[in-house]
Amino acid sequence: MKQISIQSQIFEYPVIFEKDLSARLKELNKKNKLHILIDKSVWIFYKELFDINKYASLKVFDPVEDKKNISEIASYIEFLLNHKIHKDHKLLVIGGGLVQDIGSFTAHILFRGIDWIFIPTTLLAMADSCVGSKSGINVGKYKNQIGSFHPPVKIFIYLPFLDTLPQAEMINGVGEIIKHALIKGSEAFNFFNKNIDHLGKDKKITEEIIYKSLLIKKEIVEEDEFEKNIRKVLNYGHTFGHALEGYTRHKIPHGIGVLIGMDIANYISVKKEILSLVDFTKIHDLIIRYTKSYEVELKDYDNYMDFLLHDKKVIGNEVYAILSKGIGKIEIMKTKVDFQLKNYIKEYFIKFVN
Amino acid sequence: MKQISIQSQIFEYPVIFEKDLSARLKELNKKNKLHILIDKSVWIFYKELFDINKYASLKVFDPVEDKKNISEIASYIEFLLNHKIHKDHKLLVIGGGLVQDIGSFTAHILFRGIDWIFIPTTLLAMADSCVGSKSGINVGKYKNQIGSFHPPVKIFIYLPFLDTLPQAEMINGVGEIIKHALIKGSEAFNFFNKNIDHLGKDKKITEEIIYKSLLIKKEIVEEDEFEKNIRKVLNYGHTFGHALEGYTRHKIPHGIGVLIGMDIANYISVKKEILSLVDFTKIHDLIIRYTKSYEVELKDYDNYMDFLLHDKKVIGNEVYAILSKGIGKIEIMKTKVDFQLKNYIKEYFIKFVN
Repeated sequence: MKQISIQSQIFEYPVIFEKDLSARLKELNKKNKLHILIDKSVWIFYKELFDINKYASLKVFDPVEDKKNISEIASYIEFLLNHKIHKDHKLLVIGGGLVQDIGSFTAHILFRGIDWIFIPTTLLAMADSCVGSKSGINVGKYKNQIGSFHPPVKIFIYLPFLDTLPQAEMINGVGEIIKHALIKGSEAFNFFNKNIDHLGKDKKITEEIIYKSLLIKKEIVEEDEFEKNIRKVLNYGHTFGHALEGYTRHKIPHGIGVLIGMDIANYISVKKEILSLVDFTKIHDLIIRYTKSYEVELKDYDNYMDFLLHDKKVIGNEVYAILSKGIGKIEIMKTKVDFQLKNYIKEYFIKFVN
Repeated sequence: MKQISIQSQIFEYPVIFEKDLSARLKELNKKNKLHILIDKSVWIFYKELFDINKYASLKVFDPVEDKKNISEIASYIEFLLNHKIHKDHKLLVIGGGLVQDIGSFTAHILFRGIDWIFIPTTLLAMADSCVGSKSGINVGKYKNQIGSFHPPVKIFIYLPFLDTLPQAEMINGVGEIIKHALIKGSEAFNFFNKNIDHLGKDKKITEEIIYKSLLIKKEIVEEDEFEKNIRKVLNYGHTFGHALEGYTRHKIPHGIGVLIGMDIANYISVKKEILSLVDFTKIHDLIIRYTKSYEVELKDYDNYMDFLLHDKKVIGNEVYAILSKGIGKIEIMKTKVDFQLKNYIKEYFIKFVN
């Protein structure tokens, strides 16, 4: 079985590519009192994997953004206490990034910290978010402003979950995987460029892609787990992407936002003469393979700039933009959110998207 | 200025015995954007210490148990975000243990952790809770079931706050100070036994008592910050005390509960023949100096035992009781909550309290 060990500053934990999840769950269940938190769709599709009577508690969770908040955490904790959870019990969290956020934060604050085990079920959670120990929870209208660093004690990756994953969810993972490749360098880029069409179709290649993506994430979070500096490069594409997601009222998946966001960042890098047009085009050609089937049109540039200005990485009228000097050469650069930036973005959309 | 450095596993932080708090606050305010969380009574009595216009935000907090919950935390965090709190700002928390819980937990989860500075204003917070990084927050009917380990970056002890502290609040501190002495050993016990009557009256002795109490706490939490083992001895007196507080519907202060709780634990230790009657009496004579002025009567022993059985340290019909083999010789011993234990407790109350 493929395995990666993450050297967190909190503790070391393994990511295990599991072939027989049913047997593994039985084994976990023998050794621990488990409280299960599971994504609603996964529960519906894979109920038979879980022999439910044996667990200490079960919460089926509908992963909608509205429910990723502190009051939901409070009521889940009351549920666990009603089910006599004890400090030695473990949370078993099964789902995508949002269920991970709920599970990780709950495990962090309950009894000042209990162990949790994570089984990611989306491509994004498998290839990206499962590693790095971060959680983010909403308070009122504020998104992800509270959270914790609390890694699971073990992560199990079970590829068959991808068979039932909706296309938009796959794209969310692809966005982050391509981002990892662009951060890492040419070898990773060439590998993903060559193989990513087989993702979700060929088991061996899918496993290899997730494995390589996690190795890149591992390298970054091991160097800067608490996001003091270099981990910030993982926001590549996210500032411009979030603004586009906001502008389109979330009609495009997050992954498409990230992909176009990186393309915008790269175009700005070209205009700032730090990225060659050859490199821009090489990356752009990969990105449009995914983005071309989505209808994205930007007309009201002032409105888009408004969304950009409200990003939490914007301070005053400046943003710490993550730009590119080439594949594997990502840089954080203070950039004015001004008329010139708006013109660059306008130019990008007229040339490549609208 | 007296100072203690606490070697937390999270980071090192100082406890500073501050003579000129007003000047110190001005200096802190120059260097940092401060958001103040302050106890309501302290705010009323000491308003003039704080030049309010300069701070980023101010929250006056009424420290009642009902408000030590997660929804109060959520609304405080919304308040801070509405006041444009940023990751580099600091919380300045001024108050007793309950305000400390709110401030510490808020600082821990907001932006996955921001810095906070603590100015304890009760004897208990000065001599005990300010050191050790723990917070506890209620969820629904469950007390202190969530929390964090998140020490302040600095603690300032300013003795004049004690001048306006109600007697019951002083007693809460005395309970924990005597507990520290009994955990530490004869030298500490003799010092406190000799000097504790001057507490709050003589500035120099008051400072010395708080200083010595914190050194004992420091030693324990530096060895076991996350309460895996020896830090549990700090619960000495608390299990039997909490049950008494519950039985009397909190008509006695927590400190009286702890003092009588330690006396009960010691009496049980005598009955179990691990503590000599001489040592019991020596400690009992100190304890009754404080407890004698409170009317405590126990008649319904079954009801008291019910409260005991509901303590979170009771598992099944056993409790990890913290008993004594002598001054400085505290031990955690698994003890059956049974008819015999009830008889010991009954005997204790008939002989010494009722």
